[in-house]
Amino acid sequence: MKLVLATANEDKVREIRHALEGLAIEIVTRNDFPDLPPVVEDGATLAENALKKARAVCRATGLPAIGDDTGLEVEALDGEPGVHSNRFAGPRATYAENVRLLLRRMEGVSAGRRGARFRCVVALVEPAGVESMVEGTCEGEVLTATRGEGRFGYDPVFYVPSRGRTFAEMSMEEKNEISHRGRAMARMRRFIAERFLLG
Amino acid sequence: MKLVLATANEDKVREIRHALEGLAIEIVTRNDFPDLPPVVEDGATLAENALKKARAVCRATGLPAIGDDTGLEVEALDGEPGVHSNRFAGPRATYAENVRLLLRRMEGVSAGRRGARFRCVVALVEPAGVESMVEGTCEGEVLTATRGEGRFGYDPVFYVPSRGRTFAEMSMEEKNEISHRGRAMARMRRFIAERFLLG
Repeated sequence: MKLVLATANEDKVREIRHALEGLAIEIVTRNDFPDLPPVVEDGATLAENALKKARAVCRATGLPAIGDDTGLEVEALDGEPGVHSNRFAGPRATYAENVRLLLRRMEGVSAGRRGARFRCVVALVEPAGVESMVEGTCEGEVLTATRGEGRFGYDPVFYVPSRGRTFAEMSMEEKNEISHRGRAMARMRRFIAERFLLG
Repeated sequence: MKLVLATANEDKVREIRHALEGLAIEIVTRNDFPDLPPVVEDGATLAENALKKARAVCRATGLPAIGDDTGLEVEALDGEPGVHSNRFAGPRATYAENVRLLLRRMEGVSAGRRGARFRCVVALVEPAGVESMVEGTCEGEVLTATRGEGRFGYDPVFYVPSRGRTFAEMSMEEKNEISHRGRAMARMRRFIAERFLLG
């Protein structure tokens, strides 16, 4: 069976491939279909964006497609940047620009009030019209400066107390084990295995 | 296996039960759980409302739950009443009041421009967090007066050209065969059978 990842973000593709390793499926990505039109991620919720991306790719390729969207919900910012996490500092913001803006907005917020939650929604859209979603979350804290060089996005400022490390200080294996996307993908992996009767 | 229908509308319950007949599942409804709090159907889309209803019941009962939402999209009214179909004439509108308002709004719209589409989204929410949706649509026309006494909602003014009858002039069997909800439920039936490895 062939499955398309409706993301062009190589960092995400790596994590998703890792989470689906060993299933009897051939994984291709948006990048294998250069003519696909871009998808505007303007949904009001993570679920809407995840579905929107997967639907567009499923329709264009005729293959089951996986879309995902992720948000960082910061308590001191009333849940922001949330669904706007990718473009917090503007429509073409880099990871570093988003992180800088987040740290600036959190200036003066005391240690006990820096709680945050990563949330990830993964959607599978099938050509016959069934659309399925799973979610994963990971609780942590926003540091006052970056720590670690690995991973991507807000990972260098997202500290996981139970591990004593930021996502950026973890290997991909360790991050996948506890992260929002890792947890959502573990659920999606189980769903795909059951749905398509795979090992 | 036990499955809860997250609707208290007996007309819908009858149609859904009919569509799931013969599967090895025990179907219960919201009415079997008198303490469930009501769900406010304020989603921006049919999918949101269907999920919202199913989530609330799944959480409260610990059982897989099916929610649905239906809209009538009238071309001459730019897709209205759509997600507001249930409460077109007000929050506690009866079927008859909604139909009357629709006919009034359509006064003067000529025969060739009375096209409409019923759309139904059915969502299955499982305790482990997987949420799946299917959709069904049915194309038709809005008559200038009611025809037939059966069924419910906008059925007496929704004419299906291929059958030469309104939904209200059809038996439940005939309506289920071609209707938005019937088509969505046929897809959901297949999904449930595969998902839970039933007959």
